[in-house]
Amino acid sequence: MNVLWIFAHPEPRSLGGSLRDEGVHTLRERGDEVRESDLYAMKWNPVVDADDFGSAAESDRLIVGSTSKNAFRTGELSADIRAEQEKLAWADAVIVQFPLWWYGMPAILKGWFDRVFVKGFAYGVQRPDGRTARYGEGALAGKRAMVVLTAGAPEATIGPRGVNGEINDLLFPLQHGTLWYAGMSVLPPLTICGADRVSAEEYVAAAEALRERLRTLSTQDPIPFRHQNGGDYDDSLVLRDELAPGRSGIGVHIL
Amino acid sequence: MNVLWIFAHPEPRSLGGSLRDEGVHTLRERGDEVRESDLYAMKWNPVVDADDFGSAAESDRLIVGSTSKNAFRTGELSADIRAEQEKLAWADAVIVQFPLWWYGMPAILKGWFDRVFVKGFAYGVQRPDGRTARYGEGALAGKRAMVVLTAGAPEATIGPRGVNGEINDLLFPLQHGTLWYAGMSVLPPLTICGADRVSAEEYVAAAEALRERLRTLSTQDPIPFRHQNGGDYDDSLVLRDELAPGRSGIGVHIL
Repeated sequence: MNVLWIFAHPEPRSLGGSLRDEGVHTLRERGDEVRESDLYAMKWNPVVDADDFGSAAESDRLIVGSTSKNAFRTGELSADIRAEQEKLAWADAVIVQFPLWWYGMPAILKGWFDRVFVKGFAYGVQRPDGRTARYGEGALAGKRAMVVLTAGAPEATIGPRGVNGEINDLLFPLQHGTLWYAGMSVLPPLTICGADRVSAEEYVAAAEALRERLRTLSTQDPIPFRHQNGGDYDDSLVLRDELAPGRSGIGVHIL
Repeated sequence: MNVLWIFAHPEPRSLGGSLRDEGVHTLRERGDEVRESDLYAMKWNPVVDADDFGSAAESDRLIVGSTSKNAFRTGELSADIRAEQEKLAWADAVIVQFPLWWYGMPAILKGWFDRVFVKGFAYGVQRPDGRTARYGEGALAGKRAMVVLTAGAPEATIGPRGVNGEINDLLFPLQHGTLWYAGMSVLPPLTICGADRVSAEEYVAAAEALRERLRTLSTQDPIPFRHQNGGDYDDSLVLRDELAPGRSGIGVHIL
């Protein structure tokens, strides 16, 4: 299996850094190919701007969607963006690992998606019937993705009724709105809580939990998000009345 | 009223840029003081690293929370961070305006929160009784915040049962997990949909909607998020069984 491991932590000698080392080692030991995007080590630029798009941006006004699509088509995207797209094309599975900052990704990682997931590549792809290929379909369909998180919050506080919100709800923009949007099958996340207070015993347990999840990377059931074009949504892309009737909220988009 | 307007769009000649101009003009016309953080124009650096923290980071290993708290206390945070904290301290209300990218903030804006909302300033503040002041209490309590969004998605798709998820659910990490966490009262967001396809008539309507929201900035009811320390959550910060009984999900954190 070809695995791309994306890591976004400023300190390699952190809990996150140790888990990344464990994870990459585990995969290689069983014969997987691993490539890494260690965003801090790469000094990844997370800011979308006209410099990303070569001559496609030489109009008087930058419209990010259409300009990025043109640059993607003509091969004029920045070299750093093309290199990440090439890694994605190569990968069968992607690990997205980060410390939870303000209940989301560190900016350097958000900007990896902003810059790499351009129009024509990860969104805005048409199906033969004219509908847009997204949410379970698209350029990255067939690939798997898993979020690996370290979080300062105690586990109960990101549980179903915890004050911070349930972790899958907090990750919905990433897991559903980005990874599933682009077609990837998203496995349940692995969250290691109490990040700056982990004891030696807790570290052993966290590393074993990670190894176990990696062993079953190709076989675990993904989160059963609904497909956009599978019949559950109407022509306005609203969930049909008879499905999860009377309900709203993030939960209705999961089978 | 003192208003800080944070703007995160790479193109000032965009729908978002025009609305920003309208909004700032509206506020000044009625006598408000406005300061701006135009993040692209400022070339804001969104990446947290050891350079943010002066001598506080001169240990062998960067622990972001505690290091940022030390640098905040000793006044050693980077000058760009301190300048934004000073604007926040000055403001009675904050407008957070951005184009919705991958159902969240552009990286340059996420990194404004990552770098400016440091420990000791926006989180990790203790109350006299030893509980942590957050979710409705904290350094920024008494201030108001409002998100102003432009989004490519059609309105129905970010409605209650739309395929992308309801906009307030998508914004939960920002509105609840960041702004309310730090104590700010969060007004309902203003979302302008179909961003790259807005007609002249639709622009007039969008600008008027924005002006109306700004006229009532100091009087509108905020989103009634629950207070962490108001009695609704138990000592593990889990919502008490008798409130929203049997339910989970983002909605249970709103009265």
